[in-house]
Amino acid sequence: MNRNPHHILFRMLLLGLLALAVSPSYAAIKTAYVDYKQGSTPLRGYLAYNDSSEKIRPGVLIVHEWNGEGAYVEMRARKLAELGYVAFACDIYGKGVRPTTPQACGATASIYRKDRALTRARVQAGLDVLRRNKLVDPKRIAAIGYCFGGMCALELARSGASIAGVVVFHGSLDTPTPGDAKDIRCPILALQGGDDPLVNQSVVEAFEKEMRDAHVDWQVVQYGGAVHGYSNPKNGSDPSHGVAYNAEADRKSWAAMRTFFSEIF
Amino acid sequence: MNRNPHHILFRMLLLGLLALAVSPSYAAIKTAYVDYKQGSTPLRGYLAYNDSSEKIRPGVLIVHEWNGEGAYVEMRARKLAELGYVAFACDIYGKGVRPTTPQACGATASIYRKDRALTRARVQAGLDVLRRNKLVDPKRIAAIGYCFGGMCALELARSGASIAGVVVFHGSLDTPTPGDAKDIRCPILALQGGDDPLVNQSVVEAFEKEMRDAHVDWQVVQYGGAVHGYSNPKNGSDPSHGVAYNAEADRKSWAAMRTFFSEIF
Repeated sequence: MNRNPHHILFRMLLLGLLALAVSPSYAAIKTAYVDYKQGSTPLRGYLAYNDSSEKIRPGVLIVHEWNGEGAYVEMRARKLAELGYVAFACDIYGKGVRPTTPQACGATASIYRKDRALTRARVQAGLDVLRRNKLVDPKRIAAIGYCFGGMCALELARSGASIAGVVVFHGSLDTPTPGDAKDIRCPILALQGGDDPLVNQSVVEAFEKEMRDAHVDWQVVQYGGAVHGYSNPKNGSDPSHGVAYNAEADRKSWAAMRTFFSEIF
Repeated sequence: MNRNPHHILFRMLLLGLLALAVSPSYAAIKTAYVDYKQGSTPLRGYLAYNDSSEKIRPGVLIVHEWNGEGAYVEMRARKLAELGYVAFACDIYGKGVRPTTPQACGATASIYRKDRALTRARVQAGLDVLRRNKLVDPKRIAAIGYCFGGMCALELARSGASIAGVVVFHGSLDTPTPGDAKDIRCPILALQGGDDPLVNQSVVEAFEKEMRDAHVDWQVVQYGGAVHGYSNPKNGSDPSHGVAYNAEADRKSWAAMRTFFSEIF
């Protein structure tokens, strides 16, 4: 064989080009933290998109669980970017506010559970970031949310925001102002654990009544055997505590979201 | 141009062959009425399958609405055959028993609502027809049902039948023996109208409890704005009577069934 170093370099270059060619989506996903503000409060979110095209595309706003913006929603943002969307995992709590213990998470989330106007302003600020992005078609933006973030995404819809749709995964569905549902201008898809003891059946029923009374275009899916937090692998596999990962419900709910997106975008 | 009649015939032949080539599924759907029995009761169902292949494939048992086997389930059978399944629209009521007025439909359905053992025997007889079909893989048979037929398909599951799955569309979910759900050996998907006043929310909740308590692999989807009978165009477009066609719910529920089939087969 020819051991000329130039030949070896040439072959490595060819192999590198081949690797790029067979994995274009992974190679082209660009991510960045984005600093922005709501009023005077600094916020930091996470943007992900496919960098290989200039094509205008739909945007997806992602709202985090009760522990704030972090690895889990960043993974979701990259997955959505691989599907061709501009994804932005926004920040409700404020830059650097990333509670780590359940007690701290609960205390921080509770501020926003009580002050829905503040919650709406924070989600809206995230939506504005996405709307200003040059790659995003402002008429095709959906919001999704997980647990606490489901509440936030629903509050955005209840505020009357002009968005294309909302998807919540094991979302906190309750609201102190069910009458606000009359302002919802987009379809709503709630993907719930059928055995969720936290967002329990009476909460789901109240949500369905809220949607029904306001003539919203709504769907609720319940996955048997799934409890709260079913989409997050970090929640482990023991449903007896009320919070656990469920691979089947994770897969089915992600597929349901994709079908929903194919309808609204 | 050459007007030689042989050339024209030749071109027509080519066009005919081309038409056959681009629409193989439609051209090859074979349908037939099948006479069979449950005990001494004669029954007549409707079989549909793609005749262009000898390949063994999954079977789908279809159970009719309260008016008995007829045009609606026959349309569904042909659609399922186009998707590659052997479909059999079975007969619960008996050969020639095809009530036409709401009063007669209600009276006939009520016999089977009360006598669940008889219902199970009738559905089982239909399943046996499908299972004996040489094109059907007996390990890959699902049952679907509409309204009254949803009850029948669920009774088949509650009987402990060895089937791959059950899908019900605006199904009658109630049961006098919720404890029987412990015998269910397959996944269950219920696709309900979120505003169905006949199978109302308390019935849906009782069904979810039945499934939950028995640890069944279950999913319930509720389509906002859809009422009873949402999948049947014959039900018209006025939901104020509690029964109406809803094109969106029809499309979404059919897609949900297809996804479910792709998982269980």
